[in-house]
Amino acid sequence: MSVSSSRNLKIGIIGFGPFAQFLSKTMIRQGHILRAASRTDYSNLCAQMGISFFRNVDEFLEAENDVILICTSILSLSEVLRSLPLDRLKRPTLFADVLSVKEHPRNVLLQVYIHKEFDVLCTHPMFGPESGKDGWKDLTLMYERVRIRDEAICSSFLQIFESEGCRMLEMSCEEHDKMAARSQFITHTIGRILSEMEIQSTSIDTKGFERLVQLLENLELAFNKVKQKLVVKKNEKHI
Amino acid sequence: MSVSSSRNLKIGIIGFGPFAQFLSKTMIRQGHILRAASRTDYSNLCAQMGISFFRNVDEFLEAENDVILICTSILSLSEVLRSLPLDRLKRPTLFADVLSVKEHPRNVLLQVYIHKEFDVLCTHPMFGPESGKDGWKDLTLMYERVRIRDEAICSSFLQIFESEGCRMLEMSCEEHDKMAARSQFITHTIGRILSEMEIQSTSIDTKGFERLVQLLENLELAFNKVKQKLVVKKNEKHI
Repeated sequence: MSVSSSRNLKIGIIGFGPFAQFLSKTMIRQGHILRAASRTDYSNLCAQMGISFFRNVDEFLEAENDVILICTSILSLSEVLRSLPLDRLKRPTLFADVLSVKEHPRNVLLQVYIHKEFDVLCTHPMFGPESGKDGWKDLTLMYERVRIRDEAICSSFLQIFESEGCRMLEMSCEEHDKMAARSQFITHTIGRILSEMEIQSTSIDTKGFERLVQLLENLELAFNKVKQKLVVKKNEKHI
Repeated sequence: MSVSSSRNLKIGIIGFGPFAQFLSKTMIRQGHILRAASRTDYSNLCAQMGISFFRNVDEFLEAENDVILICTSILSLSEVLRSLPLDRLKRPTLFADVLSVKEHPRNVLLQVYIHKEFDVLCTHPMFGPESGKDGWKDLTLMYERVRIRDEAICSSFLQIFESEGCRMLEMSCEEHDKMAARSQFITHTIGRILSEMEIQSTSIDTKGFERLVQLLENLELAFNKVKQKLVVKKNEKHI
């Protein structure tokens, strides 16, 4: 598929953790206008990045976003979406998510917004702050156009990834989860084992062992993120 | 350490499986003269490579080797060494091994050859047919000079690796095994799990999952070797 049309979008990001921050840098560089809301106060960081940070979710929704980009954790998704005062939205809006599972957000989005005229795009960037630190070229964006009426907005959003050289992979959420259940389960299980063992490079590494050290490096940020969230969860309320 | 002196060696290889074949290609290219003995009949392969293959171990030992290079499996090492008619050796000889554990072959070599005037060099090339397929540059050769009297022969043997650009790492067999017990145990345990799961690249690989697929590729030849040996063991006698 070719996505050629493009325009600057107003993108409201819900959940401004490390993954949202990582995506934001590229979106800002491309000229999109970003807003963010998060249970943690990221107002200083957002000010530095040129992003409007909203502590008040009503004001966030009234800010006329073309896209609401959901970057919450998997665990908090349902609670966050159900708590949003959707009647504050002033216009038809594309709801997109970037969660690493896909059937769950698709089902929640269709349930919560069943009577609304909102579009739904489910995506999974198969990369993150570590693997995408030198650009997104040849990295994969998986997506399903779950319910798209406004083609222009959807195309412009996908163009964010396509213009960076991502491999665009259209795939159903079901198929994604079936594949990922196998590959991601074993990746993260092994990653946790290596992390608990605190394995480190030695002077007699084989290439095989180096792969394990590299795996841990690839997953390190994800682990830090989990640790941060566990700490944050104790101290902060959901938005 | 710098190993500068070098001469062409007559090297007799015991055990001519995939790893010995892999090392032989480089040794032949460097101009060394190779002979081989193995429980499996490799006479055709050896003829193609320009290596003298001996079915008779007495003749193999009488062939005036500067170095006897032990490339047997860990399991058969002790049996093979004890069965060698060492009185057939015509001259002082350097016994070197390349096994992936080091205390065991060092102890066996010192026990078997305790009353003999034979030198002992224990080595572990931290690479193999897969990781070393494009050359040995920057790959590590671990070694311990266990009992060296003939410096010229030992230097010439180490020079095989140094001249290919290997990282030369002098380390005791004890220290090697302590480090490797941790790194190689987890590498091969995980490799076996992935092999049993028959994991394969998917269209939505993350970088983390790619590392696991690469690990399996790194270990694949080792697994094939194990499988071959299990088959061979049923059909062939030890030399």
